[in-house]
Amino acid sequence: MASPGELAAMRRAVELSLNGAYTTPPNPDVGCVILDATGATVGEGWHEHAGGPHAEVNALAQAGERARGGTAVVTLEPCDHTGRTGPCTHALLEAGIARVVVAVADPNPVAAGGAATLRAHGVDVEAGVLEDEASTANARWLTPFRTHRPFVVWKFAATLDGRSAAADGSSRWITGPEARADVHRLRAAVDTVVAGSGTVLADDPQLTARLDPSDAGPADAGPAGERPQPLRVVVDSRGRTPATARVHDDQAATWIATAAEVGATPDGRVDLAKLLNALYEQGRRYVLLEGGPTLAGAFWQAGLVDRVVGYVAPALLGAGPAALHDAGVGTIADTIRLDVTDVRTVGPDLRITATPRERPQDHRKA
Amino acid sequence: MASPGELAAMRRAVELSLNGAYTTPPNPDVGCVILDATGATVGEGWHEHAGGPHAEVNALAQAGERARGGTAVVTLEPCDHTGRTGPCTHALLEAGIARVVVAVADPNPVAAGGAATLRAHGVDVEAGVLEDEASTANARWLTPFRTHRPFVVWKFAATLDGRSAAADGSSRWITGPEARADVHRLRAAVDTVVAGSGTVLADDPQLTARLDPSDAGPADAGPAGERPQPLRVVVDSRGRTPATARVHDDQAATWIATAAEVGATPDGRVDLAKLLNALYEQGRRYVLLEGGPTLAGAFWQAGLVDRVVGYVAPALLGAGPAALHDAGVGTIADTIRLDVTDVRTVGPDLRITATPRERPQDHRKA
Repeated sequence: MASPGELAAMRRAVELSLNGAYTTPPNPDVGCVILDATGATVGEGWHEHAGGPHAEVNALAQAGERARGGTAVVTLEPCDHTGRTGPCTHALLEAGIARVVVAVADPNPVAAGGAATLRAHGVDVEAGVLEDEASTANARWLTPFRTHRPFVVWKFAATLDGRSAAADGSSRWITGPEARADVHRLRAAVDTVVAGSGTVLADDPQLTARLDPSDAGPADAGPAGERPQPLRVVVDSRGRTPATARVHDDQAATWIATAAEVGATPDGRVDLAKLLNALYEQGRRYVLLEGGPTLAGAFWQAGLVDRVVGYVAPALLGAGPAALHDAGVGTIADTIRLDVTDVRTVGPDLRITATPRERPQDHRKA
Repeated sequence: MASPGELAAMRRAVELSLNGAYTTPPNPDVGCVILDATGATVGEGWHEHAGGPHAEVNALAQAGERARGGTAVVTLEPCDHTGRTGPCTHALLEAGIARVVVAVADPNPVAAGGAATLRAHGVDVEAGVLEDEASTANARWLTPFRTHRPFVVWKFAATLDGRSAAADGSSRWITGPEARADVHRLRAAVDTVVAGSGTVLADDPQLTARLDPSDAGPADAGPAGERPQPLRVVVDSRGRTPATARVHDDQAATWIATAAEVGATPDGRVDLAKLLNALYEQGRRYVLLEGGPTLAGAFWQAGLVDRVVGYVAPALLGAGPAALHDAGVGTIADTIRLDVTDVRTVGPDLRITATPRERPQDHRKA
């Protein structure tokens, strides 16, 4: 059984794992705390970016010799394979770690087996500690293994009274430059951006990640320009996207997903579950859904949203379109309920992050 | 000139003054810090509730003999009259305070003159220190002196996507019990609650403050049941409120304000500026505007809202009425911009408090 000190260390490791949210994709968000033989914290680390050292290695580096005979508390089972970095199991064994406390077993068949390897070398391994908290923190990476579709984040920007544009359709800019820069960081973290053809026709967005130089990330991650742009997907039931649209520029790959190609719902729209499965088969794991309101409503109706990131401007319009249309809710008892996981100010705006509670009609539970 | 230590003390006094937000009305929100002769903080206080000791008296009680030769830093000019408590000027003189630093001069002709009295007794008085910050914190009490109308707080409850009810009109309950209890504390703090006849016809609200026993306040404020209920005002251009409506029960006084009685706008609605002036003449200083969306829009169009308190539920509806209709904004350039002054969780919900930035068309500036 995990000791109170180990539980506290795991809570801290979960917190650390969240530091990489914009930089670790496509890798998992992992945090690690090293306790010495007396139970004192001697190292902390998280996985900062794909290609860089894993959380365990960062934490062990901080602990140095004090790790010997100590305990590694880590949110995801240590990897047992050599990718761009060596296996964490070796690093833990070399450091003389006597015990490893793990929250979530690695569902990735390529990297799994770490716990077994450690045990074979005489390390005491305890798994499943604070598994729920750690799974929630790493849901972006874990969900695709379970659902065979990418993790879907719905992003919206609106005024405090819920308007995404004014009565005349104008919407530049509801949120401030800081919030818009934050959206670009989010786009740089995902591998796929999805928008509806209505949004493309109305706003002609480019849907690329355009980072400030200061957002380029750590030097050893390579210049920001080399980070691949996300795939742009336009959900376009009837193929209305004009050839002149900016999504057709040479900055990123684009897929105009039509009902004919993907599969249609009974009312002739693109079947979104099939779309996400197709993206998963193409190796896509992390989708940013950017709207408009009708497409967002269709995703919610199908139970295909995993996280909400709402940028709420301290402003009022009193008229104009809402961020979300027709999510399949007719009466208050059917409200889509969320749990707020983070609220912070981004410049003058608020950023609210929330996760849907599971509902009986969710496809995810099927 | 105020010293850095006095400026820091004034910032703290402003912070303290906000502690009484739900309990000091109809009195001003005031905070006070006592510094001893060396500049060390030896007392802190705020005005907790009408009828109770003023901020200066609370802070002096904490400081005791250490106040002698020291400085009182207070957000509002100390009163010079005997109301339910003695004049603060006497208390300061008796305690041997040598210097008084004040943020805002008292605009109340009955209580003013404190600075002059103190100076006449040889106390060094400096006024206008952090006046803007302190005025903002005490805006609820100061605004009526300047505008000759009550301070108006617009309260709304909505989902994250800005809906105040579902598509079928059902709205019980969008927010949780904690947020609803908070609204009752807010109602208990104001002297007037305003709603539109549409809301009365649709929801038949009672519009009274119903506090939990634990919200009754300090024992010497008397039982909560003795605190007067706010006046209920129904803005009802054409007198549609039925005699059987709950606002006509015996729990509180009610005014059905018709266009014929108050005065009409060119389109036959109740003239809201005249309504607020009439309430001011009746001694009303603090209005809670509870909706619905059309009435709220009319208040915003007229520039008659001083503060927004939004209860945002972590929930999505995707359809249904918004919290605000027709605030006179047609295009994004005319957006009503706010400054967020407070964000906190109230049970599962968020409470966002914000203040409108001044706009050229504001009646308040006339």
